[in-house]
Amino acid sequence: MSARPTGLSRRAVIGGAGAGLAVGAAGGAWGGRASAHAPTDRGTLGAARVPFHGPHQGGIVEPAQARAEWAAFDLLASTRRDGLAALLRGWSAAAARMTAGEPAAEGENQVALDAGPSSLTVTFGFGASLFDKVGLADRRPEALAALPAFPGDALDPARSDGDLWVQVGADDALVAVHALRVLARLATGLAAPRWLMSGFARTPGATPHPMTGRNLMGQVDGTNNPRPQDPGFAATVFATGPDWMDGGSYAVLRRIRMLLEGWDTLPLDKQERIIGRRKSDGAPLSGGPDAVERTPVDLAATDPDGVLRIAPDAHVRLAAADSNGGAAMLRRGFSFHDGLLADGSPDAGLLFAAYQADPARGFVPVQQRLSRGDGLSRYLRHEASALFAVPPGAPAGGYVGQQLLEG
Amino acid sequence: MSARPTGLSRRAVIGGAGAGLAVGAAGGAWGGRASAHAPTDRGTLGAARVPFHGPHQGGIVEPAQARAEWAAFDLLASTRRDGLAALLRGWSAAAARMTAGEPAAEGENQVALDAGPSSLTVTFGFGASLFDKVGLADRRPEALAALPAFPGDALDPARSDGDLWVQVGADDALVAVHALRVLARLATGLAAPRWLMSGFARTPGATPHPMTGRNLMGQVDGTNNPRPQDPGFAATVFATGPDWMDGGSYAVLRRIRMLLEGWDTLPLDKQERIIGRRKSDGAPLSGGPDAVERTPVDLAATDPDGVLRIAPDAHVRLAAADSNGGAAMLRRGFSFHDGLLADGSPDAGLLFAAYQADPARGFVPVQQRLSRGDGLSRYLRHEASALFAVPPGAPAGGYVGQQLLEG
Repeated sequence: MSARPTGLSRRAVIGGAGAGLAVGAAGGAWGGRASAHAPTDRGTLGAARVPFHGPHQGGIVEPAQARAEWAAFDLLASTRRDGLAALLRGWSAAAARMTAGEPAAEGENQVALDAGPSSLTVTFGFGASLFDKVGLADRRPEALAALPAFPGDALDPARSDGDLWVQVGADDALVAVHALRVLARLATGLAAPRWLMSGFARTPGATPHPMTGRNLMGQVDGTNNPRPQDPGFAATVFATGPDWMDGGSYAVLRRIRMLLEGWDTLPLDKQERIIGRRKSDGAPLSGGPDAVERTPVDLAATDPDGVLRIAPDAHVRLAAADSNGGAAMLRRGFSFHDGLLADGSPDAGLLFAAYQADPARGFVPVQQRLSRGDGLSRYLRHEASALFAVPPGAPAGGYVGQQLLEG
Repeated sequence: MSARPTGLSRRAVIGGAGAGLAVGAAGGAWGGRASAHAPTDRGTLGAARVPFHGPHQGGIVEPAQARAEWAAFDLLASTRRDGLAALLRGWSAAAARMTAGEPAAEGENQVALDAGPSSLTVTFGFGASLFDKVGLADRRPEALAALPAFPGDALDPARSDGDLWVQVGADDALVAVHALRVLARLATGLAAPRWLMSGFARTPGATPHPMTGRNLMGQVDGTNNPRPQDPGFAATVFATGPDWMDGGSYAVLRRIRMLLEGWDTLPLDKQERIIGRRKSDGAPLSGGPDAVERTPVDLAATDPDGVLRIAPDAHVRLAAADSNGGAAMLRRGFSFHDGLLADGSPDAGLLFAAYQADPARGFVPVQQRLSRGDGLSRYLRHEASALFAVPPGAPAGGYVGQQLLEG
């Protein structure tokens, strides 16, 4: 294993091997996590690897993989604190091995090994309901306070919340699905699955550059995401406390169904007005014909006749940090397409995920504003919601959550 | 567009561009379909293209893409033969444009264009129920006769059958999902969606060679598939009649849920005995330790003590052409992972697809034998079933099914 002792992102590693990708959006502005090719007979994409151990868990700053599986688990009534610790130890050990392209355990049946790790990441989170159950109510972070109700929410409790969250992502679907199966089996007798969601993002190589992806509405989505090289990135995304959460993050998840049958019938200019960006390239409508995706949004720009170029109810206006007291978060969502609803319409949309140091300075104020005035809201249904504390990464030999359970 | 006027498969084209893939299993043994890179700014994977027009429809002999969407539609009661012809004309035109990486129509909102066609294929099929509805009962092929009931079938009519079938596959999920949305919109007022299923296969580049993929049980699956370069391949896969089906094929689809919680607890040697192949590399158990995946299966081989190395109820024995009067088919399935059932077990398995010149000499005799004696059957549930006539490919300017509707 010729690990490169640098902060190069996995995208950079892939690019270096000739698949035509440049350094990605998560490209190494904060160090401490190395990526490497395993010297095996795997393909280029399969060999790309994101180490499990490091200051932060994987699956937060890395570009969204082609396939994601999200699962929530609830502890069985019989599970005590030592049982939870055993589960997290087992999960971390399996995740460390699988993300390195090794079998999850000695003698583990091979399922996805020949596809390599394929940039597999595994991320663990703790829900507010976990702490009482294992006698740790006094260690529950204030930032895990229940999210407020938002206007228009149509939340299904059975697909919301949970004691534990597992996020698996990989650029090969079988690798992701297999990893989740391994983790689910390790939970047997300790925790039971509560809900599961599958999503997707762009396959590496579909575009030559890691350009911002599109959602199922066709919109370029994520342009204004904070980037690791930005000043203040860590302060936006990573928590500094309580002690066991130092270097962790808070993940807000929302299953947002898109009412595509209505959206798709809107003319292009109406869609663009609702978003505030051109559909073709994501350029802000405030920037004129020469604007590009990353042209800064000018919320004050007006047409010659004085009309705001970014409409009062445009999504980019209401979501902008300037409109929300500087609130910011790192979005890292996936699209979903789960078949048809009873009325024949597509059960499809966005598995929204936002990571932040504190939801009260990230998702909550932004969503309070969006849910009240965003022109886009009438084409969206928030159907499930969850908030998880995502502990810092584990050092080699340690496990995620160790500081909480043994601290 | 610098189309290469050869029979190179898309895998060959990808390989030639440096992504490390050799000529695939479908590599150009029968000509007539050219693949090309579009000279755009798309990535290598995104630029790979499978032309829509040709003697056969796409999505049959090409390697399974990373993402597939299957949808069945039923004609509305008001739709007559000319309406069906208009639908098929519209669908073919949109498919031809999208598979070339172009917008589906003039002014079409851009959704997936920057990801290129990503080896997009669109395949159309006709169910037995279609013919009466448009006054073509006398042209319904005998090969479309209803499949017999098989022991153990647990079929859900709502997810089975249908007047029309659309298969979309692409190596980028958004490309596939968007293409299906475009086609669904074109059906508005003529046909309504009946069911939809999403599946996945290996992402290109996850392995250096287009090795046979694995299913969710972890088994190498598809080793004995007929290959285009095999003598008799066309006779196995493609129909020669009736007239309008000359060059077409018959697709048998089965949603096969895998009872993974039981399967995963079996020891490795038991899993291998049930299949008849090693799990690690797919080599037949009849071949000894030096066997490789493609070592021919020897159904008569015995251990020194006279015990059959391939068990009497092993899957490979019962599925073998030798056990079924030479019956053969081209399998091209996808895995699915659709969340959890009410009991918490995974709703996951195989979207099985088999293409053959005549189901009576392909799927039907093989499944009759498997459903009665296969040791694997107790870990499988056939939950949905469909049979579609897949017409030949359309020439440039024509549409799929034209020979039926205007012949």
